[in-house]
Amino acid sequence: MMSTKLNPDIWSENSRIVNDALVIAGCDVRDLAREFGTPLFVLDETDLVTRIRSWRNNLAENFQSHSGNVYYAAKAFISVEIAKILASENVGLDVCTGGELAVARAANFPAERIEMHGNNKSESEIRAAIDYRVRTIVLDSLHEIERVARIAEEFGVVQRVLIRLTPGVEAHTHEAIATAHEDVKFGFSIASGAALEAARKVRAHPSLKFAGVHAHIGSQIFDTGPFELSTERLIEFLGKLKNELDLLADELVLGGGYGIAYVDGDDPIAPATMMKALSMVVDKECKRQGFSSPKISIEPGRAIIGPSMTTIYEVGTTKEVRLENGDNRRYISVDGGMSDNIRPGLYGARYMAILANRNPETRNVKSRVVGKHCETGDIVISEIELPSDIAPGDLLAVPATGAYGRSMASNYNHVPRPPVISVVNGTARTILRRETESDLLALDVVEKARKIEGVGR
Amino acid sequence: MMSTKLNPDIWSENSRIVNDALVIAGCDVRDLAREFGTPLFVLDETDLVTRIRSWRNNLAENFQSHSGNVYYAAKAFISVEIAKILASENVGLDVCTGGELAVARAANFPAERIEMHGNNKSESEIRAAIDYRVRTIVLDSLHEIERVARIAEEFGVVQRVLIRLTPGVEAHTHEAIATAHEDVKFGFSIASGAALEAARKVRAHPSLKFAGVHAHIGSQIFDTGPFELSTERLIEFLGKLKNELDLLADELVLGGGYGIAYVDGDDPIAPATMMKALSMVVDKECKRQGFSSPKISIEPGRAIIGPSMTTIYEVGTTKEVRLENGDNRRYISVDGGMSDNIRPGLYGARYMAILANRNPETRNVKSRVVGKHCETGDIVISEIELPSDIAPGDLLAVPATGAYGRSMASNYNHVPRPPVISVVNGTARTILRRETESDLLALDVVEKARKIEGVGR
Repeated sequence: MMSTKLNPDIWSENSRIVNDALVIAGCDVRDLAREFGTPLFVLDETDLVTRIRSWRNNLAENFQSHSGNVYYAAKAFISVEIAKILASENVGLDVCTGGELAVARAANFPAERIEMHGNNKSESEIRAAIDYRVRTIVLDSLHEIERVARIAEEFGVVQRVLIRLTPGVEAHTHEAIATAHEDVKFGFSIASGAALEAARKVRAHPSLKFAGVHAHIGSQIFDTGPFELSTERLIEFLGKLKNELDLLADELVLGGGYGIAYVDGDDPIAPATMMKALSMVVDKECKRQGFSSPKISIEPGRAIIGPSMTTIYEVGTTKEVRLENGDNRRYISVDGGMSDNIRPGLYGARYMAILANRNPETRNVKSRVVGKHCETGDIVISEIELPSDIAPGDLLAVPATGAYGRSMASNYNHVPRPPVISVVNGTARTILRRETESDLLALDVVEKARKIEGVGR
Repeated sequence: MMSTKLNPDIWSENSRIVNDALVIAGCDVRDLAREFGTPLFVLDETDLVTRIRSWRNNLAENFQSHSGNVYYAAKAFISVEIAKILASENVGLDVCTGGELAVARAANFPAERIEMHGNNKSESEIRAAIDYRVRTIVLDSLHEIERVARIAEEFGVVQRVLIRLTPGVEAHTHEAIATAHEDVKFGFSIASGAALEAARKVRAHPSLKFAGVHAHIGSQIFDTGPFELSTERLIEFLGKLKNELDLLADELVLGGGYGIAYVDGDDPIAPATMMKALSMVVDKECKRQGFSSPKISIEPGRAIIGPSMTTIYEVGTTKEVRLENGDNRRYISVDGGMSDNIRPGLYGARYMAILANRNPETRNVKSRVVGKHCETGDIVISEIELPSDIAPGDLLAVPATGAYGRSMASNYNHVPRPPVISVVNGTARTILRRETESDLLALDVVEKARKIEGVGR
C-alpha cells in the first residue's frame, strides 16, 4: 500500500488515495491524464464551493448585520466559469484590470457585487467599469480621484468609491511591523495626511460618493496579528474622518492575504478564527470611536482557490547527480515548469508532490523536481524526498496550485499553457482549454511597413 | 535640451534623441505610441541584423574553415518574422520545445540549420523534430538516447546528435569556478563518467550519428574566462572520446550566455574579443590533443536580440512616498509591468529608463518605476533618478528588453501582452500583434461534464 496520507490542510477535500492512485472528486488522475493530457490543473469544484461558503458564512456569522461582502480576488485565478460559480454563491468579485472585468462581463457577473482595484487604472478601464456600473471603484492616487470623477460625470452617474490606505503595517508570515510610512506603490498614507487629503478631495466631487476605506497588508499571512493591527488603524482613521470631515464610512474592506498550506507544517488560520478575531477588534475599536460598525468586507483569493487545484505532471526523464559532498540528488523532469508555476522562481515558494499513479516499490531518496524549460532555475520543488523508482511515464501531483499558477502562466519557450478541468463526483469538464500550436502562432502577423515619421502631427 | 546621452552599449544602434524625443530608426516614439498604443516593444531591425552579422562574421573570421553555425537561441525571443530574418541571414536556430519548432516551421526555417535542445523533450516533440529533419538533436539524458534512437528508427533515418555535457564550470558574471560536479538538471557529467557512457550508448545505435558535444555554462557572463575553461574541458573530453571510443567529433557547440549591458557600467564583451579568445583556446587544446579542430558553433540569444528592443510605456499615475529615513521616493506607475518583464522580479535584474517624449524641465529625483499589477513586487526599476516633473501621459523608454521580456510575458491580471513592432528607416510594421480582450477569453470553454471513472480501463 502507498503510505501517502494526504494532509487535509494541503489537499482539496475530495482528494484521496484509492487503489494506489490519486483520485480527486471520484476521478482517478490516471484517467484524467489520459483524457485531458498533462500538465493539467484539476479543480476540485465542491472544495472550491466549500471554501467560498466558509468565508462567506463566517463573515456573516461574526459580523451579523455589519457583514459586507466577500470579494473574491480575481488575480489569484479567474475564468468565466469560476466567475459564474462565484456569482451563484452570492459573493462579490475584486477585479483590478479591464481584462479581469471582461471575464466578469462574459460571465454576466452582477455589477453590484464588483469592486475595482488597481494602482494605475487606465482611462479605458475606468470607463469600462463605470459603463458596467460596478458597485465600487477603489481609489489609489490623487490622479485617479480626478480621473474617476471626470469620467463618472461624463456618464452622468455618481460613482461609489473607497479610498485605499496604507495603514503602516508590514505583515510578514508570523509577525507584523508597525511603521509610520510604507514604501509601496499602493494607496494613501494615513500617517502623512495624504489619506485625509484624499477623502477631502473625494467629498468635493459631486460625481463621487465616498463609501469607506480599504487596506491590504500583504499575502500568505499565517497570523491574525497584522490584520488586527491594520484594522485598529483603519477604524482610528474612520474616527478622524468623522471628526474632521464629518464623513461616515458605509463599508470597511479589510483586504485579503490569508495564508494557505503548501507543505507540511504550514499552519493557516481557519476562516472562523480569522473572522472572530477581526470582529472583536472591529467591535472594540468602533465602540472606542463612538460609532456603529460599517459593513465589513474581505478579499480572499488564494485562501479560496489555492487548495482547490492540483497540478498533474508526467515525468519525462530522470537523472542522478553526484553532489560535491558525495551525496546523490535525483533530478525528476516533468512536462511543465516555470511556465505554469513561476512561484518557486519568483518568490522562492515551496511545494510538495506525490507519486500519483501507483504504489512506489522503493524507498524515498533526495530528489529535485524540475521543469522542461531551457533554464537551470526552472525548478518546481528544490528539495523533496520521493521514491527512487519514479520513472518516465509516472505522474506527479503537486497540490495547492490554484492561486497564482495558471493566472501567472506564460508561454516561455513557446510552451502551451495547460488547461483547467473541473471535477465533481466522478465527472470532469474543461473550463479553460489547453493552448494549441495554432494559439501560439495566433499573434504572428504579416504586415507591410508603413511610413511613421510625423504621423498625427 | 534634454541632457540624455544614449549609451551605445545599452541602446540599439538607431536610437537617438531628436527634437527632445526618443527616435528609433527614424520613428519618433510619440508617433509609435499614438499609432500602436502602449506598452510597446520596438524592434530596431537593422540593429538586430547588425548583431546577427557581427556574431556570424566574427565566428567565421576567427575559426576560418573550422567555423560552424551561429545557432540563435530562440528562447530569448522568437516569432515567425524573427525566424525569417535569421533564415535570410544564413544563421542557425536553437529550439528547445515543439512550440519553438512550430515557429520555425511556420517561417519555413531551413531544417538543416536547426538544432533541438531540451532536458525533457516529449515523444511528440522528438517526432516533430525528426519529421522536419532537423539537423541536430542535443541529447540530454540516458532516457533520451533510447527515445531518439527508437523514433529515428521508426522514421527510417539516421539522426545526427550531439551530447550535452556539464563541464564542471560554474560561471558567475565575473568569475568561473571549476568544480567536479554540477548540480543542474542539464547534461551528462564529464567527471562522473556519465558523458563517456552516453557516447558509448549513442555509438551503439545505428539510427544515431554521433556528431559532437555541447555545453552551456550560464547566462549574462561578462568575462571570457569561464568560456575558455569550459572549452578546455570539452576538448579534453573529445580527446578521451577519440582515445577510448575512437569517436571523432564533427562539431563542438560552445553554448551562449554572453552578457549584454542593461545599465551604465555593464561591460559586455565584443563578439570579436570573445571569438578571438575562444579560437585561441580551441587551437591550443586541439594541438595538445593531436587532432584538428571540429567545427565550432555558438548559441547567442540575448546578445543578439536583447539590445535590439526597447519597451515604451505610458505613465498613468505618480505618487510621493516619505521613507522612514525622511527621504522622499517618487513612484511612477506605467501601463505594463511584471506581465511584460518578469526579470526584475525573477532575477533581481536591473534596467534603466528615460523620459522619452519631451525635455524634462526639472531636476532628477529618487524614483521607482512600477507596473500596474496588483502586487507590491511589481517593480520595473527599483532605484532610478528621473525628472521630478514626469506626469501621467508621459512616455518612458526602457532599453535592452528584447531578451526574456516578451518571450516570458504572461497574462497576469488578465493584462493583454504587448505587440512587437519592427522599425526601419522611418517605417514600422507589427510583427507580433497586441492581444485583445477576446484573445484573453479564447480559452474559456463551456463543456458538459462527462463521466470519467474508469475511462480506458
